Amino acid sequence: MSRRRSKAEQRPDGPPWRVTMHDVIFESDTPAGWVFDVALLLAILLSVTVVAVETIPSVAERNWLILGRFEWFLTVLFTIEYTARLACARHPLRYAVSFWGVIDLLSILPTYIGFFFVESDANSFVILRSIRLLRAFRVLKLWRMMDDAEELSQAIWKARHKIIVFLIVVLVAVTISGTLMYFVENVIPRMTRGESPADDSEFIASQFDSIPQAMYWAIVTMTTVGYGDIVPKTTIGKFISATLILLGYSLIIVPSGFVTAELTSKKSAEPAGETKCPRCTSAEHHGEAVYCYRCGERLTAEG
Amino acid sequence: MSRRRSKAEQRPDGPPWRVTMHDVIFESDTPAGWVFDVALLLAILLSVTVVAVETIPSVAERNWLILGRFEWFLTVLFTIEYTARLACARHPLRYAVSFWGVIDLLSILPTYIGFFFVESDANSFVILRSIRLLRAFRVLKLWRMMDDAEELSQAIWKARHKIIVFLIVVLVAVTISGTLMYFVENVIPRMTRGESPADDSEFIASQFDSIPQAMYWAIVTMTTVGYGDIVPKTTIGKFISATLILLGYSLIIVPSGFVTAELTSKKSAEPAGETKCPRCTSAEHHGEAVYCYRCGERLTAEG
Amino acid sequence: MSRRRSKAEQRPDGPPWRVTMHDVIFESDTPAGWVFDVALLLAILLSVTVVAVETIPSVAERNWLILGRFEWFLTVLFTIEYTARLACARHPLRYAVSFWGVIDLLSILPTYIGFFFVESDANSFVILRSIRLLRAFRVLKLWRMMDDAEELSQAIWKARHKIIVFLIVVLVAVTISGTLMYFVENVIPRMTRGESPADDSEFIASQFDSIPQAMYWAIVTMTTVGYGDIVPKTTIGKFISATLILLGYSLIIVPSGFVTAELTSKKSAEPAGETKCPRCTSAEHHGEAVYCYRCGERLTAEG
Amino acid sequence: MSRRRSKAEQRPDGPPWRVTMHDVIFESDTPAGWVFDVALLLAILLSVTVVAVETIPSVAERNWLILGRFEWFLTVLFTIEYTARLACARHPLRYAVSFWGVIDLLSILPTYIGFFFVESDANSFVILRSIRLLRAFRVLKLWRMMDDAEELSQAIWKARHKIIVFLIVVLVAVTISGTLMYFVENVIPRMTRGESPADDSEFIASQFDSIPQAMYWAIVTMTTVGYGDIVPKTTIGKFISATLILLGYSLIIVPSGFVTAELTSKKSAEPAGETKCPRCTSAEHHGEAVYCYRCGERLTAEG
Repeated sequence: MSRRRSKAEQRPDGPPWRVTMHDVIFESDTPAGWVFDVALLLAILLSVTVVAVETIPSVAERNWLILGRFEWFLTVLFTIEYTARLACARHPLRYAVSFWGVIDLLSILPTYIGFFFVESDANSFVILRSIRLLRAFRVLKLWRMMDDAEELSQAIWKARHKIIVFLIVVLVAVTISGTLMYFVENVIPRMTRGESPADDSEFIASQFDSIPQAMYWAIVTMTTVGYGDIVPKTTIGKFISATLILLGYSLIIVPSGFVTAELTSKKSAEPAGETKCPRCTSAEHHGEAVYCYRCGERLTAEG
Repeated sequence: MSRRRSKAEQRPDGPPWRVTMHDVIFESDTPAGWVFDVALLLAILLSVTVVAVETIPSVAERNWLILGRFEWFLTVLFTIEYTARLACARHPLRYAVSFWGVIDLLSILPTYIGFFFVESDANSFVILRSIRLLRAFRVLKLWRMMDDAEELSQAIWKARHKIIVFLIVVLVAVTISGTLMYFVENVIPRMTRGESPADDSEFIASQFDSIPQAMYWAIVTMTTVGYGDIVPKTTIGKFISATLILLGYSLIIVPSGFVTAELTSKKSAEPAGETKCPRCTSAEHHGEAVYCYRCGERLTAEG
Repeated sequence: MSRRRSKAEQRPDGPPWRVTMHDVIFESDTPAGWVFDVALLLAILLSVTVVAVETIPSVAERNWLILGRFEWFLTVLFTIEYTARLACARHPLRYAVSFWGVIDLLSILPTYIGFFFVESDANSFVILRSIRLLRAFRVLKLWRMMDDAEELSQAIWKARHKIIVFLIVVLVAVTISGTLMYFVENVIPRMTRGESPADDSEFIASQFDSIPQAMYWAIVTMTTVGYGDIVPKTTIGKFISATLILLGYSLIIVPSGFVTAELTSKKSAEPAGETKCPRCTSAEHHGEAVYCYRCGERLTAEG
Repeated sequence: MSRRRSKAEQRPDGPPWRVTMHDVIFESDTPAGWVFDVALLLAILLSVTVVAVETIPSVAERNWLILGRFEWFLTVLFTIEYTARLACARHPLRYAVSFWGVIDLLSILPTYIGFFFVESDANSFVILRSIRLLRAFRVLKLWRMMDDAEELSQAIWKARHKIIVFLIVVLVAVTISGTLMYFVENVIPRMTRGESPADDSEFIASQFDSIPQAMYWAIVTMTTVGYGDIVPKTTIGKFISATLILLGYSLIIVPSGFVTAELTSKKSAEPAGETKCPRCTSAEHHGEAVYCYRCGERLTAEG
């Protein structure tokens, strides 16, 4: 409720059909609105499936006809939805340039462009393919379904400073770990073997063949993803990477704790009222406060 | 206690042996009931082991006789258990169609079907094998052992909205990451090399050979499982996937925090009553408080 | 302090040198005791390093003399320690059969056995090697160093029911996931291809070649370790394993939350006093309680 | 604010330009200071990128001229920064030997050394390369940007005992798991096959070819990184490693919980003062409370 502006304010002026249509499309608390929401949900899921399946060569070849028909059916459906939203929005232009308006337009445009676009050469084939892939962003329309997402976004938003600090810490840790491992896996073996600088073939034999590559390894490792496409080969490299893993692990559990603590404290804080002192306007009073902690003024009525 | 309906209500009518048997089978607070529970636990574990071991060709060939005998011994045991439960349940039919009734039936049926089923050709061999695998679901009988599982299920149940929101967020993130990586690992190399659309062999050289495959990669990566069967090969692909890993990691620690916060707040909330003292308005009384902890005022009516 | 019985009670009778030696060895609050602790710590770390390094063939061959000398030096040291502990313990026999006594004996025995054991044939070589590996358990002596480990063990001990429930849930999930994936990766491809049961070579082509193997995969996957030695090959297998990963991930964050919640609630509970009501002996009073919540008796002196 | 000593104390004596320069460089609350901070941030990021990119052979060869120019431009910039900091610090010498002074010097020195150092032979080439890599530590200059890092470091600092205990527990678990897996994957297969001790080729066939290697596996596994470069091959090895994974997972979620609990308790504890109201004995006052929130009594002396 607090998320959107009040319903009355949002509702369009004009003929009653616009108001009814608005309620069906933008609200989900009427039966018709609920049916519309579920239908839209199914259409989005089906549409994303079609886009995904079209990229599997074996399936796409055999079923191109049925996939194409589904695609057109869904595009027409989304076109109707887009037109309807434009028609019954209180401020059609404002909707058209809003985040949702752009996403809704992006859901239908690629199919039409693909239809009119002439596939003349290799280059245009690639562009066409890229445009068609844009349809996968229809999945963003799912976001509109989620009333509960509000709390999640708020939690992320509240924790944004922590997340940025965390990302900087990770960046620093990743750069240093990466450089260290690049050095250990490349420069040390060369030192001990005393190769000439001209013979660079041996030198790049390690999988840590550049610092960016080693930083990619550090990110994959510190987040405990651990693909295993890049692993230390030397004994010293294994020893140092084991140490870095333990340090990284000890480090990386801290921001998780931060976010949890943020959410937990929010939970506990919730029951606390929003009362302001009538004399000195200070807030953050104790949950059961009777007197202002700053000026001693009585907060609640004597009754 | 609160989980099941009261014992008296559950107990069957009729001759005393039914009541005794009921107590042995359905309750675990008598010695006989405890012995029954432990025996059942061992039988389940042994049974699941037999089913699992039968699928190892080398072991199964050498020990088919002993495995078969174990299987029949356990099936007879579970058949007796099923019959006994049917016999002493207050409402035999209601038990037969309940979750546990179906699981109990599923635990014995496959062995009998396998006995009467004639293995005539390849097709029936496959069906037979499928039926025999159903016996592995006997492990679900373990669930009945867990009194403590209640709290776990409640926690999951309470967090279900959060988990659904989390799954939708993951679905959106996975679709977009997958499409992006498919594009980056396939379309971009083709663009720069300017290949003809006919030459599709090069095009599918990347491991991200379709969007579903790329989405599978995204799920495996975002949950930090990281098999490493699909990894980015291009430099830009590595860069983008490292970014996605960091974003995904920052994102995925939030729902964990949510669940923890939910559980923590539940913990703290438990002892706290909602009563306020009528004299001094203090809250946070003990759950069974009769007097205010601060001023000694009686909290509840004398009655 | 609360961990061990009171010092006076622990101290041995007899001549003063026994008491002094006891304080040096068993207590760490005297300078000599501290030096003894640090020396023991270094000896343990060195000893474990020697055992580990001896198993690297290239290093062991070149340095067998120095490694052997270190080994004997450390064994003599640990023998002196063991004798000293036996000599000055209040109840030498009770120490000898205690956990620490066994660990201390295990730290020295393998070296002596290895010395007297005649390496006659292949079999005795293997036994000898196994005995020598037992020395690695010296690392358990580190445990004695950790006063802070108490809280950790308590947290694990308090969460033991939760951990058992969690392990049962994991066992059930792993059995069902494993059976499902074994079925999906083996039986389904066979069904669609309609192979004869005699031709078993194709049938075992999948990496999920038995249910135990598939269960191993499920454990490696659900805990997000994800080695990648066993991965689904079929499209349907990938789809189902992606679903199982997401379900498993949603499931597995719950017990972490449980443990955190347990620890958090313990933290908050700590400040709460241990006061008992003098009239009705009830405990668990509010942190600032003045009156008993149960009988209304004044808890603290009027002053 | 609390992090650094008060501004007045930090400010240098002497001519006004020193004071102004000090404010621009060391403070970020003036517009000039903010611009300086952002410029420094960009320079650091660019510099680290240059160092990283230089190690990619293909890119470095084609762009050595532009990379070299960037490098010199940034080095001159950092040299000016270093000189300026030296010039306007209150105690230039104290700055020069401080952590930041050393980092700032380390950011410029390698480029100058590289310029004067004559690359005569293979050995000096390796040393040169090592020195140039030191420039990557410029990323540590980012740390100075983070005012919010304070809380993170404090959290890590407060949890240091827990982290050390955790690392010791991990060390013990890793040593025992590693030894066990080395034994299971090497000694057991040999026992059953009864090979002669001379034939060591088979013996080292397992990937767990030494205890340090097995310990590296244990660390990679317990932290759920799971590269997959070392995996158990024998059935018993898989069984034991699956058990170790589950035990390790159950164990490793405890310290995460500890850190979270630490952070959560800190959050809750923050607002709570330790003051008790002299009239009504209630606690949990606001951090800056002057009056009791419950009875309005003045908490602090009038002075």
